[in-house]
Amino acid sequence: MKVAVYRKEHFNAAHRLHVSSWSQEENEKAFGLCNNANFHGHNYTLIVKVIGEPDKVTGYVIDLKVLSDLIKKHIIKKFDHKNLNLDVPDFKTINPTAENIAVVIWNILRKEIDKNLELKVTLYETERNFVEFPAS
Amino acid sequence: MKVAVYRKEHFNAAHRLHVSSWSQEENEKAFGLCNNANFHGHNYTLIVKVIGEPDKVTGYVIDLKVLSDLIKKHIIKKFDHKNLNLDVPDFKTINPTAENIAVVIWNILRKEIDKNLELKVTLYETERNFVEFPAS
Amino acid sequence: MKVAVYRKEHFNAAHRLHVSSWSQEENEKAFGLCNNANFHGHNYTLIVKVIGEPDKVTGYVIDLKVLSDLIKKHIIKKFDHKNLNLDVPDFKTINPTAENIAVVIWNILRKEIDKNLELKVTLYETERNFVEFPAS
Amino acid sequence: MKVAVYRKEHFNAAHRLHVSSWSQEENEKAFGLCNNANFHGHNYTLIVKVIGEPDKVTGYVIDLKVLSDLIKKHIIKKFDHKNLNLDVPDFKTINPTAENIAVVIWNILRKEIDKNLELKVTLYETERNFVEFPAS
Amino acid sequence: MKVAVYRKEHFNAAHRLHVSSWSQEENEKAFGLCNNANFHGHNYTLIVKVIGEPDKVTGYVIDLKVLSDLIKKHIIKKFDHKNLNLDVPDFKTINPTAENIAVVIWNILRKEIDKNLELKVTLYETERNFVEFPAS
Amino acid sequence: MKVAVYRKEHFNAAHRLHVSSWSQEENEKAFGLCNNANFHGHNYTLIVKVIGEPDKVTGYVIDLKVLSDLIKKHIIKKFDHKNLNLDVPDFKTINPTAENIAVVIWNILRKEIDKNLELKVTLYETERNFVEFPAS
Repeated sequence: MKVAVYRKEHFNAAHRLHVSSWSQEENEKAFGLCNNANFHGHNYTLIVKVIGEPDKVTGYVIDLKVLSDLIKKHIIKKFDHKNLNLDVPDFKTINPTAENIAVVIWNILRKEIDKNLELKVTLYETERNFVEFPAS
Repeated sequence: MKVAVYRKEHFNAAHRLHVSSWSQEENEKAFGLCNNANFHGHNYTLIVKVIGEPDKVTGYVIDLKVLSDLIKKHIIKKFDHKNLNLDVPDFKTINPTAENIAVVIWNILRKEIDKNLELKVTLYETERNFVEFPAS
Repeated sequence: MKVAVYRKEHFNAAHRLHVSSWSQEENEKAFGLCNNANFHGHNYTLIVKVIGEPDKVTGYVIDLKVLSDLIKKHIIKKFDHKNLNLDVPDFKTINPTAENIAVVIWNILRKEIDKNLELKVTLYETERNFVEFPAS
Repeated sequence: MKVAVYRKEHFNAAHRLHVSSWSQEENEKAFGLCNNANFHGHNYTLIVKVIGEPDKVTGYVIDLKVLSDLIKKHIIKKFDHKNLNLDVPDFKTINPTAENIAVVIWNILRKEIDKNLELKVTLYETERNFVEFPAS
Repeated sequence: MKVAVYRKEHFNAAHRLHVSSWSQEENEKAFGLCNNANFHGHNYTLIVKVIGEPDKVTGYVIDLKVLSDLIKKHIIKKFDHKNLNLDVPDFKTINPTAENIAVVIWNILRKEIDKNLELKVTLYETERNFVEFPAS
Repeated sequence: MKVAVYRKEHFNAAHRLHVSSWSQEENEKAFGLCNNANFHGHNYTLIVKVIGEPDKVTGYVIDLKVLSDLIKKHIIKKFDHKNLNLDVPDFKTINPTAENIAVVIWNILRKEIDKNLELKVTLYETERNFVEFPAS
């Protein structure tokens, strides 16, 4: 029977919400303070969930130390202390909402984790605003 | 593919657990201290989850500022700093357990949110006792 | 040299803020929603701090199990699942603000704890509103 | 319609990760610091989730006081302030990873809870490493 | 006798640590990732502490609703969803470390709060890095 | 004027409370479950507080990255995933209560931090039991 394992990591980043094909007025109306031209920022909390059958000998679905190292190598190094709009190429053409950041992170990690294991990410932009992909 | 977004809000309310068709002894046996005739109270934490596809341009499933305003208008204004048994008509005939409060909140919010979006509510009565509707 | 030890406990209570010598208008102006005649409520979190020298043999300032039992016997039993205004005689003549509740708790516990030990209480009415007595 | 209810409890235990059929080198390679021969320990947080239809009269899926007492009787008494490897027979032949502890707890509680109610457990080994069984 | 009251608020901001009179190398050596030219950001948590004697009638040291409104008017409006280096004049000539932000906030609030009341601020840059001014 | 800066770290350890000069009965009476011969364990949370004047140029009291590295080198490496009674020589002759662990940590760190800076440590054994040294 399958067990889900979770690892929580953190990164701190600047961003702004902005649709480049829109006018300044449209952007301000849609995104309000989040559209500030000089950016604002967040302490993002990332929870990565992996589902599979525990190994009969070790009792691990995946070694959480290994999962933590994968997240640090592929996500934290790329996102932490960065400006998501300017420093992370994935957001050159898409708006760095929490929803889009979660999908980008999932796509990166999906390539690094055994295909027999299911993957889900939860991303907290603040303690009160958070997202999950894929939704369940 | 679908993303879930979450918004956390708070309200503080008094309540008592009580079945009016029961004797005092039956109520005390079933609900113990929670049946105190003069009420007790809680800091309720409400998490509203909405599932849908992010808009291709904005990257939003639903603007969490809009969701927060809906919750404040339809739930917080009605429940916060109130006595659930005496001040909230929804509990005139049903017992304000966490389960029933969550169902009442879901029914109110379901009418306010686009039918293409799935809705779920989680309600914390205390940090250690909480409920989710619909269950998943 | 002195060490401080802390024990965290919880109680859930109803209350209203109300000055009986004032008119309804004065009370509403001063206390707003907190003056609701039918009460509202909170999950109060209480942190009791005791300062002293650790015993040279046991290494305890005070056994935190003993401190927890004292708090449960003298505070939790009296305040939990109660209406502070109606059920707790200490608030017959004083307004149950967080400040006053903290002072009442301190006065009760001060009599139960060795005079050689310093005592302080912190009381959370919500996660965002809390008080400390005596102030430091 | 079904509601999920949750109860959070705690226990503090020592353990080590170790496969008795492996050499010391294999164990150190697989489990690192977690293989320390003298054990280490954790404050485990256990969340038990029960899904069912609320009773039409009481509004309870299950009385959370009853659920809490079941957890204390069958789990906390057996695991709290214990050495999982030495004091808990369930781990004589299986490695006390978070995955395996969660499955053991689920198997114990499953026998104590009405068959019409679904059961799930979440176990936090640390704030950043946690598991869920069965996975969803 | 004096009671301390506390109010917790939040703001989200971008910043970079940078000393303009230093070379790029000196800045990178001193501040590492925090010196990123395109900024990064945080969810700052601000706790404002006010010490005084509770009013004998109301039981308030200061109405925490009033304190919250003061913080929102003078601090949150100025700092939230801003770039501290570019949008907040107070940091034109001083480096926006947590220490300096806390002192700037204290100086702003000190002018708005009754001189008979003591004032202290605690600022969390992350859950693991925080500062307090004045120190006690 | 002085600012306090804080850094939070974690370690997971096994221990038992035991006075070797006492009989088994005396130990059981004094320490109850905490005296279990096979040990139990905790996720300890350590908060290190350093007070000083921020540097006029950098704005730092002490670089929290430097403080974090000091804590990791001198405390975490020595305590994490260890048995405090068996693996840490400091507790060969003293009982590893939270009070004594905090004093031991303070004594180790005091030698590593500039004498012009004040030092204090807070140690959480559980979320509900914690200690501070020196007391304030």
